[in-house]
Amino acid sequence: MNIRNDHPFDSATKLTDLGGGKFAGETSADYANVVGTFGGVTAATMMRAVLENADRRGDPVAQTVNFCGSIGSGDFEVSTTMERAGKNTQHWSLKLIQNGEVKTTASIVCGVRSEAFSKQIETKPPAPEPKSCTQLKTKGLISWLERYSFRFVEGEPQLSGIPLSEQGNSRSLLWISDIPERPLDTLSLAAISDCFFPRLLHLRGKMVPFGTVSMTTYFHATTAEISTNGATAVLGASDSKRVHRNFHDQQMQLWASGGELLASGAQLVWYKE
Amino acid sequence: MNIRNDHPFDSATKLTDLGGGKFAGETSADYANVVGTFGGVTAATMMRAVLENADRRGDPVAQTVNFCGSIGSGDFEVSTTMERAGKNTQHWSLKLIQNGEVKTTASIVCGVRSEAFSKQIETKPPAPEPKSCTQLKTKGLISWLERYSFRFVEGEPQLSGIPLSEQGNSRSLLWISDIPERPLDTLSLAAISDCFFPRLLHLRGKMVPFGTVSMTTYFHATTAEISTNGATAVLGASDSKRVHRNFHDQQMQLWASGGELLASGAQLVWYKE
Repeated sequence: MNIRNDHPFDSATKLTDLGGGKFAGETSADYANVVGTFGGVTAATMMRAVLENADRRGDPVAQTVNFCGSIGSGDFEVSTTMERAGKNTQHWSLKLIQNGEVKTTASIVCGVRSEAFSKQIETKPPAPEPKSCTQLKTKGLISWLERYSFRFVEGEPQLSGIPLSEQGNSRSLLWISDIPERPLDTLSLAAISDCFFPRLLHLRGKMVPFGTVSMTTYFHATTAEISTNGATAVLGASDSKRVHRNFHDQQMQLWASGGELLASGAQLVWYKE
Repeated sequence: MNIRNDHPFDSATKLTDLGGGKFAGETSADYANVVGTFGGVTAATMMRAVLENADRRGDPVAQTVNFCGSIGSGDFEVSTTMERAGKNTQHWSLKLIQNGEVKTTASIVCGVRSEAFSKQIETKPPAPEPKSCTQLKTKGLISWLERYSFRFVEGEPQLSGIPLSEQGNSRSLLWISDIPERPLDTLSLAAISDCFFPRLLHLRGKMVPFGTVSMTTYFHATTAEISTNGATAVLGASDSKRVHRNFHDQQMQLWASGGELLASGAQLVWYKE
């Protein structure tokens, strides 16, 4: 972790160890969503609870977060349970509880990573440098959007009312980075995994009620490898495979500028209409 | 569910309701793996525990299964907890316990699905009919392999010792069906999600120690829609994005012969060497 006490992301994910695997946290207005908190920060908070656990061994390799209910402004508690630990992996279960209600559940797998056969099959899509891509104007829309720079290569969200579904194109490619800048780590990647605008907006050309129900992220690089990137933008790609009867998937990949795939994953989104 | 009392899959996933959200199960020699039980049947067993729960509403839309430790031959218990229920979704947490140890954890989201905007973005890959593809010989290898028909269109596993990594090709495309035949349902799709040979075998051209640590499946069709397919083969596609330092992802899609994407997902695989 690259914790900076003066960065809003680190303040938003800050936890106080209560002992017995329990941690106290508080929502941050900096990452407020239309309703509740930005899911990416919730994912990062769950991740931080495992990383700050004294019993944790190895790097996080997989995380699934289930968004059960929106987290209201204020205090919450995160409980962590190490379900099983072996020579190579640790399996953690987590719950975020607010006012006695389960708001989020998560599972995180940590793994010992050493020298082994290595092969990247999927190559980074071609993209111009971040500085030559126009930054999306997010000022005054939703709080958490102001905490990220979105520089679109393709698939910029268009609330034009013109559905793009005839084109069948819902792919976005964009450079994403923290505002203010912050060195990349597992926490920021866990959050950026949830940074993509819903594919439905692209397909419909308008906003409809939606919410992520479950999100899974795999980390393809070690904590040390992620850290070598420093405070830089990652290239994010996102698309959907099927939108059907109130639920759609949303795939994503996060690439380092050097070409390494740092993380990949998917989420399932509920939508109305 | 299309439960058939005379089918080995239904016997293997059979549960006895113990009350209080707990169910008793027993491993089946028909789906034994090299060590423990075929993960697909474990996933289906967890799914069946939710489907047989009287409080369950809606169709399963997302499932994550974490394989914490191998399940030994014999009895086990599955505990189910409904963490949260809203108008549109239900969030379930599950644990499979054997001899006092957590062997598997899972989260399952059920959702109410009705008429809504629908769009399939990813199209079914072209493939000849199942009957014109040669069935893989699996007799006498591993028990669970004999319970499925694998008819490869491309990417047949080759234990030739020749690594395919130079070609960078790890994709497989194949028709998969139950042996004996069984009408498709959410349970069989949950199992078939784990039916793909490890990508590592393709890339290395040899078998190395490996094991799935986490698997996530999204169901893109309703229970009723899945059921209309009857006892038929699904077209499965699988590939990996990155194999690095003891962990690799494995993406998968399951298509109905008619072209509908029935399920998609990914798993994270631990490997040695």
